[in-house]
Amino acid sequence: MLRKVFYISDGTAITAEVFGHAVLSQFPVEFDALTIPFVETEAKAHDVKLQINDCFITTGERPLVFHSIVKAEIRDIIYSSEGLDYDFLNTFVAPLELQLGMKASPVVHRTHGKANEGYEARIDAINYTMDNDDGQTLKNIDKADLVLLGVSRCGKTPSSLYLSMQFGIKAANYPFVEDDMDNLKLPTALKENKSKLFGLTIDPVRLHEIRKSRMDNSRYSSLRQCRIEVKEVEMMYKRERIPFVNTTNHSVEEIATKILDVTGLERHMF
Amino acid sequence: MLRKVFYISDGTAITAEVFGHAVLSQFPVEFDALTIPFVETEAKAHDVKLQINDCFITTGERPLVFHSIVKAEIRDIIYSSEGLDYDFLNTFVAPLELQLGMKASPVVHRTHGKANEGYEARIDAINYTMDNDDGQTLKNIDKADLVLLGVSRCGKTPSSLYLSMQFGIKAANYPFVEDDMDNLKLPTALKENKSKLFGLTIDPVRLHEIRKSRMDNSRYSSLRQCRIEVKEVEMMYKRERIPFVNTTNHSVEEIATKILDVTGLERHMF
Repeated sequence: MLRKVFYISDGTAITAEVFGHAVLSQFPVEFDALTIPFVETEAKAHDVKLQINDCFITTGERPLVFHSIVKAEIRDIIYSSEGLDYDFLNTFVAPLELQLGMKASPVVHRTHGKANEGYEARIDAINYTMDNDDGQTLKNIDKADLVLLGVSRCGKTPSSLYLSMQFGIKAANYPFVEDDMDNLKLPTALKENKSKLFGLTIDPVRLHEIRKSRMDNSRYSSLRQCRIEVKEVEMMYKRERIPFVNTTNHSVEEIATKILDVTGLERHMF
Repeated sequence: MLRKVFYISDGTAITAEVFGHAVLSQFPVEFDALTIPFVETEAKAHDVKLQINDCFITTGERPLVFHSIVKAEIRDIIYSSEGLDYDFLNTFVAPLELQLGMKASPVVHRTHGKANEGYEARIDAINYTMDNDDGQTLKNIDKADLVLLGVSRCGKTPSSLYLSMQFGIKAANYPFVEDDMDNLKLPTALKENKSKLFGLTIDPVRLHEIRKSRMDNSRYSSLRQCRIEVKEVEMMYKRERIPFVNTTNHSVEEIATKILDVTGLERHMF
């Protein structure tokens, strides 16, 4: 039976999840995880405590409890359960108080709340990215922080959206399609924004698989066509000196952070 | 001068950022943060060490260093800098090794890597959400995990995208517009998927501000129209017994996790 894990918070529990997941992913086993957000009242905390204790009774193993609970009275109830507490917030807050020479002044919902500076700019970035996805229009391209280029289904849209959602980057994206291939060149509007361009490429065999699952038995999805498009586009990146990454074996997180690392664009935090 | 903070990783550094940000947001001051991802070689680690040491010399204060470095030889170089180390991974890995009765087997890029189970399902969810944004089509609505409803500019699109990106939820969204208001009712395709519906609402004054910034001096952005639309839509939610949340004072993280909490939809981790 998989070891039971609880991610608990008086906020969204996103931080507790991300943290617990990062720590547990260092171990070569799977876990059975349950996330409980918005534990904001003592009554709810007592319910959660019961749930943890029941789990201990049923499984005979103390559940792992990762939490990021800001309110002390809620935290104490969870501490009093049979779970094994991994309280990353408070483990680090005490030494930081000493270092910084000030007391922490915890506020629930500060980490992922809307009061976060720049929140509106982030929503603007998401909207910009939606409106400028897949080369729908190039007329607002001068407002972009970044323009991702690439053939259809190489990862432009998820990468652009991740960049806007996670980092507040206005990321447009522009596709090169079959008809472009005979004489592949950059549209004038893109040439004029060359410092913002970043290319994506992909292994043609992987591209072929992805396209087949959307449109089988088509020229679009044929391995031959995939090879032609990838080759032409990579040649253009080199000719035009556009930096590019291969997305084949990388997640959107890795693609997005690699692009920011290469371009030097600032990572905003939300 | 703001205290300098480094977020360092041999991977994307997203976990180090999220963790450091969560801890530092407990303090009532601002920090000057720099993220350095992909510190994968000893040469790069030595560069980063120099940067940390320079920062100490320049500012006279030891920089705070949050890191999630998996490779021991890289980590040791960062440890030997003048920075104050907050190593959340290893702080918790050792006690977990005891508890779990096994050694950690750290692998770089496991946390945010593509090998992550369900990665393709997540990309499918993002594509589904893009294709079913803003009521573009209702013909794939039976494939949705969730359908967000609401008036224009109440937060449907960013919330849907966050749900797909962060949690792998296929979230469609459907707008109610001015012309619907005289006789507001659910389209048949939505009625047939009633268990998937979730409503968003918003304070009319806030809606008026958001719409004004897009289209000033229009009926669409007038406070009167905003009030009518919000009132009609909220009445329909109640009439049809559709659960709903008010987005006015909440971030996409809070809206998304609240929806999952109410609906009981599973939170996938990536």
